[in-house]
Amino acid sequence: MEIGMPELDRVIHEPVRLRIMACLDTLEPKEQVDFVYLRDLLEVTDGNLGAHLQELEEAGYIGVKKRFVGRKPRTFISATTKGRAAFGEHVEALREIIEGGEAGKKG
Amino acid sequence: MEIGMPELDRVIHEPVRLRIMACLDTLEPKEQVDFVYLRDLLEVTDGNLGAHLQELEEAGYIGVKKRFVGRKPRTFISATTKGRAAFGEHVEALREIIEGGEAGKKG
Repeated sequence: MEIGMPELDRVIHEPVRLRIMACLDTLEPKEQVDFVYLRDLLEVTDGNLGAHLQELEEAGYIGVKKRFVGRKPRTFISATTKGRAAFGEHVEALREIIEGGEAGKKG
Repeated sequence: MEIGMPELDRVIHEPVRLRIMACLDTLEPKEQVDFVYLRDLLEVTDGNLGAHLQELEEAGYIGVKKRFVGRKPRTFISATTKGRAAFGEHVEALREIIEGGEAGKKG
C-alpha cells in the first residue's frame, strides 16, 4: 500500500495552471500561444488567466511577450526550458501517486 | 493542441488530499487505515492531516471512526463508495490533461 511521497509543485498543481502548462508543453520550442486563445480554451476570465500567468512567470516557468499586431496589442505566452522540466517532473509525480494506487489494487 | 476541459475536483486535487485518496483507494472495501499510519506515510502533522480529513469527510468521500483499542483512542479512516467514484473520475480528468499534452507532442 506504499504510495511513496513524490513532490508535487504547488505552482503547477493548481488546476488552471496545470492546464496552462499542459497546453504550453505541447508547443514546439519557439512556438507561442495567444492570450485570447488560451483564455477561450481554458474558459476563464481575462483577470483570472492574467493572475495565473503572473504566478507562472514569477516562477520562471513561462515567458510572456506583448507586441502590436497591426494596431492591436497582443500577448504571447510560451513555456521556458525550466517550465517544461518542472511540468515533466510534476507529471511524473502525479503518475506515481495515481499508479501507486492502481498497483496497490492489483497486489 | 486541444487538451479538453475535464473537471478537476478541488476537494480531491489538493496535494495532501490527493495522496490520502490514492492511499484509501488501494484498500479493500471494508478495510481502514489508522490515523497515525496515514500521518507518518504522508509526513504531515496531526493538525494538518485532521483538517484535510475533515474536508474529505464533509464532502462524503471518507468515513472516520474513533474507537478504543485497549485504553487508547484510535482513529480509523476509509473511503466511501462516493469517494472512490470521485477519485476515479479525478484520476481520469488528470490523465486527460496529462495525456492530452503528450498526444499533442506526437502530432
